[in-house]
Amino acid sequence: MNTLSTPEHRFAALRDAMRAHGVNACLVPSADPHLSEYLPGHWQARQWLSGFSGSAGTLVVTNDFAGLWTDSRYFEQAAQQLAGSGITLMRLRVPHMPEHVEWLVEHLAAGQTLAVAGDCISLGARSTLQGRLAAHGARLRCDLDLPGEIWRERPPLPTAPVFEHAIDDAIVSRTEKLRRVRDAMREASASHHLLSTLDDIGWLTNLRGSDVEYNPVFLAHLLVDGDRATLFVGNGKIGSALAARLEDDGFAIAPYGALAEALASIPDEAKLLLDPAQVVSASVASVPEAVDIVAGPAPSTLMKAVKGPREIERVREVMRRDGAALVHGMRQVLERVAAGTPTSELDVATLLHAARAAQPGFQGESFATIAGYQANGALPHYQATPDHHAMLEPRGLLLVDSGGQYLGGTTDITRMWPLGELGSEQRRDVTLVLKGMIDLSRARFPSGASGPQLDALARAPLWAAGADYGHGTGHGVGYFLNVHEGPHGIRPPAPGGALVPLQPGMISSIEPGLYKAGRHGVRHENLAVVQAVEQTEFGDFLGFDTLTLCPIDTRAIDPDLLDAAQREWLDAYHARVESELAPLLDDPADRGWLAERCQPLAMAAATQAAA
Amino acid sequence: MNTLSTPEHRFAALRDAMRAHGVNACLVPSADPHLSEYLPGHWQARQWLSGFSGSAGTLVVTNDFAGLWTDSRYFEQAAQQLAGSGITLMRLRVPHMPEHVEWLVEHLAAGQTLAVAGDCISLGARSTLQGRLAAHGARLRCDLDLPGEIWRERPPLPTAPVFEHAIDDAIVSRTEKLRRVRDAMREASASHHLLSTLDDIGWLTNLRGSDVEYNPVFLAHLLVDGDRATLFVGNGKIGSALAARLEDDGFAIAPYGALAEALASIPDEAKLLLDPAQVVSASVASVPEAVDIVAGPAPSTLMKAVKGPREIERVREVMRRDGAALVHGMRQVLERVAAGTPTSELDVATLLHAARAAQPGFQGESFATIAGYQANGALPHYQATPDHHAMLEPRGLLLVDSGGQYLGGTTDITRMWPLGELGSEQRRDVTLVLKGMIDLSRARFPSGASGPQLDALARAPLWAAGADYGHGTGHGVGYFLNVHEGPHGIRPPAPGGALVPLQPGMISSIEPGLYKAGRHGVRHENLAVVQAVEQTEFGDFLGFDTLTLCPIDTRAIDPDLLDAAQREWLDAYHARVESELAPLLDDPADRGWLAERCQPLAMAAATQAAA
Repeated sequence: MNTLSTPEHRFAALRDAMRAHGVNACLVPSADPHLSEYLPGHWQARQWLSGFSGSAGTLVVTNDFAGLWTDSRYFEQAAQQLAGSGITLMRLRVPHMPEHVEWLVEHLAAGQTLAVAGDCISLGARSTLQGRLAAHGARLRCDLDLPGEIWRERPPLPTAPVFEHAIDDAIVSRTEKLRRVRDAMREASASHHLLSTLDDIGWLTNLRGSDVEYNPVFLAHLLVDGDRATLFVGNGKIGSALAARLEDDGFAIAPYGALAEALASIPDEAKLLLDPAQVVSASVASVPEAVDIVAGPAPSTLMKAVKGPREIERVREVMRRDGAALVHGMRQVLERVAAGTPTSELDVATLLHAARAAQPGFQGESFATIAGYQANGALPHYQATPDHHAMLEPRGLLLVDSGGQYLGGTTDITRMWPLGELGSEQRRDVTLVLKGMIDLSRARFPSGASGPQLDALARAPLWAAGADYGHGTGHGVGYFLNVHEGPHGIRPPAPGGALVPLQPGMISSIEPGLYKAGRHGVRHENLAVVQAVEQTEFGDFLGFDTLTLCPIDTRAIDPDLLDAAQREWLDAYHARVESELAPLLDDPADRGWLAERCQPLAMAAATQAAA
Repeated sequence: MNTLSTPEHRFAALRDAMRAHGVNACLVPSADPHLSEYLPGHWQARQWLSGFSGSAGTLVVTNDFAGLWTDSRYFEQAAQQLAGSGITLMRLRVPHMPEHVEWLVEHLAAGQTLAVAGDCISLGARSTLQGRLAAHGARLRCDLDLPGEIWRERPPLPTAPVFEHAIDDAIVSRTEKLRRVRDAMREASASHHLLSTLDDIGWLTNLRGSDVEYNPVFLAHLLVDGDRATLFVGNGKIGSALAARLEDDGFAIAPYGALAEALASIPDEAKLLLDPAQVVSASVASVPEAVDIVAGPAPSTLMKAVKGPREIERVREVMRRDGAALVHGMRQVLERVAAGTPTSELDVATLLHAARAAQPGFQGESFATIAGYQANGALPHYQATPDHHAMLEPRGLLLVDSGGQYLGGTTDITRMWPLGELGSEQRRDVTLVLKGMIDLSRARFPSGASGPQLDALARAPLWAAGADYGHGTGHGVGYFLNVHEGPHGIRPPAPGGALVPLQPGMISSIEPGLYKAGRHGVRHENLAVVQAVEQTEFGDFLGFDTLTLCPIDTRAIDPDLLDAAQREWLDAYHARVESELAPLLDDPADRGWLAERCQPLAMAAATQAAA
């Protein structure tokens, strides 16, 4: 039996399947029926076929072409992983834009057919793609799963148990959340609501799982009507005690695969609210023709993004714990390197994991720790592996981007650590990015402003120096949920892109960067919560309150490049970091190290001059 | 005979006409068949009906409601002009957004009909409106001109002669421009192209007119195919010698009203390129059904916006002339006020007109001069009139926004002039806005960035102080053409809004503001040209080169609020202004005044302390 052990074999088999079905092109997105960022192995067909392991990538295969579209975060990694595969790396000009559609429209002739598995494409994307192809006389089929046909050793669905996010941590009960969602359904004149988005389902049900790495979610769909909320979830994943509690709270349990049947039986006069960008084509194939689809954002998405004061208080506590862990872990890393103890990028992840695991409420990383030494830091989503990683030496820059899942919140932080002597270009680059992070962190803006309106504030100091970065400036962050969550985001305005107003209670990362391939990469990242700042005759003004608590190592910067306001912000931040973290540090060495790292700039300069 | 001399009579007549036609609502936009900003009297039905004289406003009339939508520039003025008329002022949340559509959709019942004159609504707006109404069972009719039916004393079409923009000033010949447009038509697979936009027609033909105030354009449509370019223009407006030259250059002349007939006779296999946002519904009513409409921006719009180096050189010369005129005019204004000579806001316009008229190439104002003293400056588009204007007193702030049309370019400048003592709040506000203007003026940005991406850079210093302004930050400017021209613009990102990349050679205003109703208004405005600045490993970076040359009166600012980079920019700007303008000033008093106004900040502070 041919196990399709090489990409060449897999592409040959895929092309055989395409020919057998009369299909001219096959689209393999990085997607599952929940349009999640992290995919269960069962839906990692794109990675299985192409060998490219980045989180974002779209594969297109025709008889004589195979191309993988990905964004600038992954250009370097994809070039390495695709080398020799015969797959062309298609560099996205704008991250997350479906630029492969242009390619398909140009290359598919009239009468030709494109296939994509219906459980891997949103209703919205299907409709756009169908329209574009139809205008050129080409056809789209969503009823064939060609990679699935040839994938004999496809991993099964995950079976991890579902557990409760206890009310003391979740703050708002699932009955209350369900009531709010039903209010919003009534406002949208919807009788039914289909939700496939895993973090929305987790938020609404106060349930968590571990079906994928890092995101504490479980595979499920939720169908809400006026009387019932039915959770479609794999058999055996919800224990009987939990099922009973859910029942008491108005949630019925049904098998994961029973969604189609349930949708087939909703009444003809129903009005079904769903977000065409968040529900896949296959999920609604069974909905009766007569049912009206009310297209709109899932109400839970905005509700989940706006954290309440009690949630924010829990997040602040988590930030102190996370910051204390980082101080303990990074002090060890830096001291090991200084002492000449062999330490690798992988050891950084291990030491940080150990430090975080000692904190109450820690549930695991919120994403794979990125520890990128020197040139490896220039790969924004770099992953050290047992086979490929660098040993840290007492010079140059270490970028560490890491985060934790805690019962009271989710963290995500990036810091630049000098391991010894830095070149002046490195110090300048670290400072330029810091200027951008500070300028946005201290910005005030009118109520109604969206992330895309603010994005340039973080970039301007980099632009002034002829530099830029190819990723967004900030993403929403969940509450013991996905480290990337919508609907808001801070990124350049894009044609047709959403402009979600920032609201008090929304959490966003603020993370400008600067990447010089083959040399070094810089990123600083804090999480911040949007808060009301003042009311003037011009309206309500908002600002960010930084949540993340961890020193920014001033040995890596050139303070002369900061302006007075930036210096003031940094000194005030460090004073707060020290006063909040010191009480949580038991080890005097940690406290001493923290105090040194949190010195005001003027004092730090004197200390360094004396050293 | 009832001459409909009051708004009450006009609304009664309009409602009679609505009833007679079975129409439930009438939409009266501020629009003409060319979708121009300045309308010939013939198409000023909205002003005639409502009494509101601002340039932007949309009137909706039903049997029991009349509302006028306008943007924040006009809130104060509209409130004054609509007082007692029974017309509700509908304040736009976002300038230029068709928020009246929401109102219509909400208030028109199924089966009801809305009428709008087909020569006052773009194809794009018609289609959006039709779709929105149809979803609610309501209907749109564009074949009735109800205001036209009742408007007995409607002004006739303008008859001003058309003249040539000589090649020495126009730089590029009309045959060359036509060749470029035909190249673009071929690229869009179009056999025909309909252009109704007056400044595009003026640019393409190197012709100018004076059919409306301030914009040197003439009413015309242009239909281009592979062999001919036919200019539809009022009889007698083009003299025979000019007509012969146009004929030689491949342009035929036809009567203004003959467009419908010409479009009716284009062949069925034609592909007609037009911009649905720039062509009105009535213009294309006669196009044969079989003809394919290729919807896309008119190629001339972008070509016109990107000025060549020789045009920019001419603009620089014009800026010196314009700046010298402003120095001469404003010195007189300020000296008169200081001497106690009675001087009104209207006198400011008169003195500036006289100073500009003495400059070679001056053709007239590019818009009505705004001279707003104290609280009048808070009305962004304030117009002093013989009946309503302020006398200037030797205290407080005078805002002057003015511009000229010259054969070698169009100017637009706003300056804040202190007439004597200023309060600390006024100095602070003048300085905050200046910080915004300087920050954007000195910004660098990557090639590909659009105005909406940069807009916040001008606002951030105001936001930091809890202030903002309700208009855009910058508009494109024509070359002896419209003072407002597209396709680029610097304004907050808006849903579905264009994101036109700024390109070297584009001219934009940079004009943040701050308006405190009843107290004072502040705006600083320069024109700047986009230019290439540097190429780095991150790509091409662009910046602005300020074109406008006129002192910024530092007696009105608080220099302590400027940061070091802003002070440096201002001193360098003043050094340049003095060296460029002084040679053009014959009067020693003007030169002395210029020198004083252009002192570096440090020296100016010393001078003022000594005074």
